[in-house]
Amino acid sequence: MKVNGTHYRTVWMQQTTVMLIDQNKLPFKFEIIASPHHTETCEVIKDMRVRGAGAIGVTAGYAMAQAFAEAGSDAEYVKIARKRIEATRPTARNLFYATDRVFAAGIKHGSKGAMQEAELLATEDIESCKAIGRFGSVLIDDGCRMETHCNAGWLAFTDYGSALSPVYHAVAEGKNILVYVDETRPRSQGARLTAWELANEQIPHTILPDNAGAWMMSQGEIDLMIVGADRIARNGDTANKIGTLEKAIAAHHYGIPFYIAAPLSTFDFDCASGKDIPIEARSEAEVLYQSGPDKDGVLHEILVASPGSAAFNPAFDVTPANLIRGIITEKGIIRPREEDIIKLREI
Amino acid sequence: MKVNGTHYRTVWMQQTTVMLIDQNKLPFKFEIIASPHHTETCEVIKDMRVRGAGAIGVTAGYAMAQAFAEAGSDAEYVKIARKRIEATRPTARNLFYATDRVFAAGIKHGSKGAMQEAELLATEDIESCKAIGRFGSVLIDDGCRMETHCNAGWLAFTDYGSALSPVYHAVAEGKNILVYVDETRPRSQGARLTAWELANEQIPHTILPDNAGAWMMSQGEIDLMIVGADRIARNGDTANKIGTLEKAIAAHHYGIPFYIAAPLSTFDFDCASGKDIPIEARSEAEVLYQSGPDKDGVLHEILVASPGSAAFNPAFDVTPANLIRGIITEKGIIRPREEDIIKLREI
Repeated sequence: MKVNGTHYRTVWMQQTTVMLIDQNKLPFKFEIIASPHHTETCEVIKDMRVRGAGAIGVTAGYAMAQAFAEAGSDAEYVKIARKRIEATRPTARNLFYATDRVFAAGIKHGSKGAMQEAELLATEDIESCKAIGRFGSVLIDDGCRMETHCNAGWLAFTDYGSALSPVYHAVAEGKNILVYVDETRPRSQGARLTAWELANEQIPHTILPDNAGAWMMSQGEIDLMIVGADRIARNGDTANKIGTLEKAIAAHHYGIPFYIAAPLSTFDFDCASGKDIPIEARSEAEVLYQSGPDKDGVLHEILVASPGSAAFNPAFDVTPANLIRGIITEKGIIRPREEDIIKLREI
Repeated sequence: MKVNGTHYRTVWMQQTTVMLIDQNKLPFKFEIIASPHHTETCEVIKDMRVRGAGAIGVTAGYAMAQAFAEAGSDAEYVKIARKRIEATRPTARNLFYATDRVFAAGIKHGSKGAMQEAELLATEDIESCKAIGRFGSVLIDDGCRMETHCNAGWLAFTDYGSALSPVYHAVAEGKNILVYVDETRPRSQGARLTAWELANEQIPHTILPDNAGAWMMSQGEIDLMIVGADRIARNGDTANKIGTLEKAIAAHHYGIPFYIAAPLSTFDFDCASGKDIPIEARSEAEVLYQSGPDKDGVLHEILVASPGSAAFNPAFDVTPANLIRGIITEKGIIRPREEDIIKLREI
């Protein structure tokens, strides 16, 4: 999608250097990182300078390809590298999907094969997001007021995004949409990234404190909710950014259609239910401190809680399938249940 | 309650000057404001340097008494003052309860009568909060993990508080309690004020991002939820800080007891249901900017959202009575329904 009118992807490869938009600097600074070594790329993922299911996956695939390029004839090297990459973010399914495929290609066809597979993953990510947009846009009426949580836009993938791709598609079809953007504390990916994306595409949007969602629903102000996913179990249970569960319960309470948008690479067919999804807990500092620019543009990190108090920071939650109306995939919209999900793999 | 070991009330009167703890400076600075004129006291309420149902009420009562002292024989003056005071915070029931009583006393008995009535209101506020603590503590088992939203502690009243008063009482009885404190964006009264209160009373507590509540409930980590109220309608519908509704829906979904704690002065017997409660929308700046100290203790106000994006900031929501297990009052715990609420007034 566009940044100040120029087209960008979230992540791409130049020779064996991974190039990424630094998402920790957004929305206040637009900067590109060059990561020439797979260990650096691991740090980039761990520090969430790249984040979002698809973007993590593609970056992990590139990191795996970098490791094959670095390894030469050292077979142990790529195995250690794979473990290092997979340790960066335990919840994101797309990461394991990517390392699986690039590792297998590298073992079979060497460094060049690994690189080709990583590029293929990026292309597939883009194409599947486009298809999600086409399928999902039928859910969006002209005048729709849609709520979304966190960022599942193009910044969370290589391009287009999952939850926002139907919005981009519907707007391109000429529909008027107002997007309510959950702030999404503690990292505020909604207020910072989704709002920035939508502003760059000139799509009307309003940031909501996470606390305001149910109230807006109760007042008839929300027609539809679409969010992304970090991992979807075989039974349709879905791990996504913390707060998704709360919104799904509220949407269910008010009868508001609640959809997940995610490509096949987010499905974990080996995972029977949400109980089997590991949930990453992150540092309490993300809750206790916030950063941003003052009125002169100088960045500060400030304490936003009572000094000395502890915080708990689970990064994801699991929304049970029975609270989900449907899952928008690149193969179409499916019901969140095992028989439909299994069929998906066979198409 | 105590601040660094010394007992304080949230608000008190010295001659005709209202003295208050500046809650906008907490938890980073503990400062007392002196407000010698009722118009200044109005500004203090409007700027939320004093906030919380009971504390707003008592401060409004003092402001009304100040106006009688200022008025001399000018009958119009006190009427205009009353309107000014009542315009500061439209949702808080306690404010109108206080101006009603002090105005009536002032008309009948003059400036001295108004001052006595305002002091009586403060005393009643303290006593009713104490009684709420006694009644509410029976709901708290030893080892209880209780969640609360916003600040309904002593800072929200003259002393003791509503939702936290049962905690203080139960701890005094020797029970071990862990309080999960919702951050409560956008003004973060949970992370800033409730955490500060509990730290001063050395009560174990952990700050939760507002997004984490339902997840913690789903994991069996929450035994009980008690929150305060800004206005309770005759049918039990309750206006409280934005986000209360979302937590009530989640608690209902998981079968977790959800209680409101509030004195009689918070009940609006003229208000048939939640539909009749005016909801205050506040400035979007409260969502877009945050303030706090950097590591050197220097205060900054920083932008925490994408520059130029709009935000919506409803300050309260209404939780329907059917999501509330009971209301803890100074007369006992009642069911949230009209016949019980009407009876309350007659006791």
